[in-house]
Amino acid sequence: MRIKNASDNVRKNSPIIHNITNYVTVNDVANVLLACGASPIMADDKNDVEEITSICSGLNLNIGTLNERTVESMFIAGRRASELGHVINIDPVGAGASHIRTETAAELIRELDVTTVRGNISEIKAVASELGIFRNTSGAKGVDADAVDLVTEDNLEQSIEFIKEFARQTETVTAATGAIDIVTDGNETFIIRNGRPEMSKVTGTGCQLSSLVCAFVAANKDDVLAGAAAAVITMGVAGEIGHEHLQDYEGNSTYRNRIIDAICNMTGDKLEERGKYEKR
Amino acid sequence: MRIKNASDNVRKNSPIIHNITNYVTVNDVANVLLACGASPIMADDKNDVEEITSICSGLNLNIGTLNERTVESMFIAGRRASELGHVINIDPVGAGASHIRTETAAELIRELDVTTVRGNISEIKAVASELGIFRNTSGAKGVDADAVDLVTEDNLEQSIEFIKEFARQTETVTAATGAIDIVTDGNETFIIRNGRPEMSKVTGTGCQLSSLVCAFVAANKDDVLAGAAAAVITMGVAGEIGHEHLQDYEGNSTYRNRIIDAICNMTGDKLEERGKYEKR
Amino acid sequence: MRIKNASDNVRKNSPIIHNITNYVTVNDVANVLLACGASPIMADDKNDVEEITSICSGLNLNIGTLNERTVESMFIAGRRASELGHVINIDPVGAGASHIRTETAAELIRELDVTTVRGNISEIKAVASELGIFRNTSGAKGVDADAVDLVTEDNLEQSIEFIKEFARQTETVTAATGAIDIVTDGNETFIIRNGRPEMSKVTGTGCQLSSLVCAFVAANKDDVLAGAAAAVITMGVAGEIGHEHLQDYEGNSTYRNRIIDAICNMTGDKLEERGKYEKR
Repeated sequence: MRIKNASDNVRKNSPIIHNITNYVTVNDVANVLLACGASPIMADDKNDVEEITSICSGLNLNIGTLNERTVESMFIAGRRASELGHVINIDPVGAGASHIRTETAAELIRELDVTTVRGNISEIKAVASELGIFRNTSGAKGVDADAVDLVTEDNLEQSIEFIKEFARQTETVTAATGAIDIVTDGNETFIIRNGRPEMSKVTGTGCQLSSLVCAFVAANKDDVLAGAAAAVITMGVAGEIGHEHLQDYEGNSTYRNRIIDAICNMTGDKLEERGKYEKR
Repeated sequence: MRIKNASDNVRKNSPIIHNITNYVTVNDVANVLLACGASPIMADDKNDVEEITSICSGLNLNIGTLNERTVESMFIAGRRASELGHVINIDPVGAGASHIRTETAAELIRELDVTTVRGNISEIKAVASELGIFRNTSGAKGVDADAVDLVTEDNLEQSIEFIKEFARQTETVTAATGAIDIVTDGNETFIIRNGRPEMSKVTGTGCQLSSLVCAFVAANKDDVLAGAAAAVITMGVAGEIGHEHLQDYEGNSTYRNRIIDAICNMTGDKLEERGKYEKR
Repeated sequence: MRIKNASDNVRKNSPIIHNITNYVTVNDVANVLLACGASPIMADDKNDVEEITSICSGLNLNIGTLNERTVESMFIAGRRASELGHVINIDPVGAGASHIRTETAAELIRELDVTTVRGNISEIKAVASELGIFRNTSGAKGVDADAVDLVTEDNLEQSIEFIKEFARQTETVTAATGAIDIVTDGNETFIIRNGRPEMSKVTGTGCQLSSLVCAFVAANKDDVLAGAAAAVITMGVAGEIGHEHLQDYEGNSTYRNRIIDAICNMTGDKLEERGKYEKR
């Protein structure tokens, strides 16, 4: 019932989420937040973000198309959100692919009172290395996880240990998502096996998931781990339901819509019924 | 026939609309302009906007993700459009939610030769207060209208009076849209009851409507009020038609497409047949 | 088999494409790149673009919403990509509509080691005039090709000669696309008659095509002409297939999805079967 409750709380509380996010997938982020029962607001000017974030309950920072101007705004918004005790999620898009991305992600985590980090395993390794938590031997090659990093059943135990260590040292709930998702507060861990491989052909499923994590946690401040896990399960189950409704001639563009549609029609009961997760 | 004619004129004249708008919903704005028979062009660099707006017939300024750079460009484009006698629409997204939004919206209306203002009732109240037209006692809490402000059958008369006063003092045709829409030049008023509540789950229906208002008015410069009203009715009727084609498993993302699709297939006759409006 | 092979090579090589492109159609660009088998990455900060472009094999520069900041980044990324021998595609969106667009497009072509140019005929004429290749007597009136410029069966021979001259002088493969597409290296020419007129009602089909050209050429560096031609044929055939699946009540927004879906399901065999092209 913990996942069901966490999910139901989003529609009950309708949290407003302030997003400073990339312009590639921002529209999908807005629609997925509306789909789950939250409200999106986007603002990235340094003279706008303090007031805007003040009227929200969560702040979602995504560095997918970072630039000097918006990074400054991320810190301004983030400091205000930290003061107000708001939920802050960091999505370190492309960390490991350039110095500025790795450093900005690490600096946001260091300086702000971050609640959750949601990324793929390569991005989290790159940030961990920058933060001195872990010596990175992988090499992310863009915005996708590197093949050598992928979480598999074979390396699952050591991947869990790494993410738990990352969560403990950053004092966050960390969600490393991919074919197998790991969501942990450093102590308790959800391992989630929902989703479809075709989701990687849809741009922005990671960005959408980050905004969901932020909204679910904002609606479940007394159980951040369950909030984050419920968000990850929601995305995976929606990917499965969305795929079931695809026609032969349909592809990744219609799939994008079907995933968000499925979130729009998601219920806590459906999540519990279809969620494939274990807790350790 | 006034609404039908106004609508038919858009496909007949194919106005080109210059948009300086937010990056959240800009793609939908472009597609909805194409759907109604207009042509979109987006340009926001200060060295680009004067020439671009000169080849257009309408300028749509939307402050949804305003920043210092684009606000400067809005004024440069707006001054040129004013000189050329082009239609200018202002969408004061989030006015009331931050000082910079409220002040920028008010300043655009004060300085430029604005033809139309399209916003929700909370945004218009915030701008009215900033312009000294009205003492704002509401509190917008984001980009959505605040519950205490909503236009209902109970407060309709006083809402109409307020919007008429706003229209008269700003010398614009003002469209306050929501469950009940009010479109007025300060003298004559259209009250429109089309649309579906589910439209509020689709990001950017307001932004799309603003671009439609700009296009419809640019194609109907001799009857600005009918142009603006026809645009508002178009959005509402499209929301209804789009909803009729939704399957059970579809949600807000497919609905977004269906609304634009319905505008693509809209005719002046369909508008007159399905439009639920009264004139006072 | 040359077109089939060029197409198959994209899924085989999965090139990563760095895009500095407009915020209007950037999401569609990302999804269409994923649909064809490539991977997109977007980065436009001057401190980010050198590293990002280094891990890619193609750079797609699109000036649709250019500004001072991103133009600087285009040159920085472009110089690095030139040094590395990466494929560079230029999309001169709106060249001819403003001085800054025309000059920027010309300057990018002059300064960088550009592989391909993809634009409509009016844009290419404007750039040609700026580069001193051709005295422009047309007048582009926005982001669409001007009626007087359109390539028709009547002016086809002289249009081909012009595009060949442009390709020779710029040392690029040039793709002038519209109802009839011309793709040439200045010597050998593909003339392509796929596509549907309704594609002009979907925003960003040109931008999407530019990203496809970049990806196809990056996957076919030993046959740039066939790569570019295969990309153009892919877009045209997808436009036809996508249209076949449209219901009566569907319009340009669903059509957008259907076109990308068709690219997601495209095969080299289907291209050869449905491609309507001649080679001269």
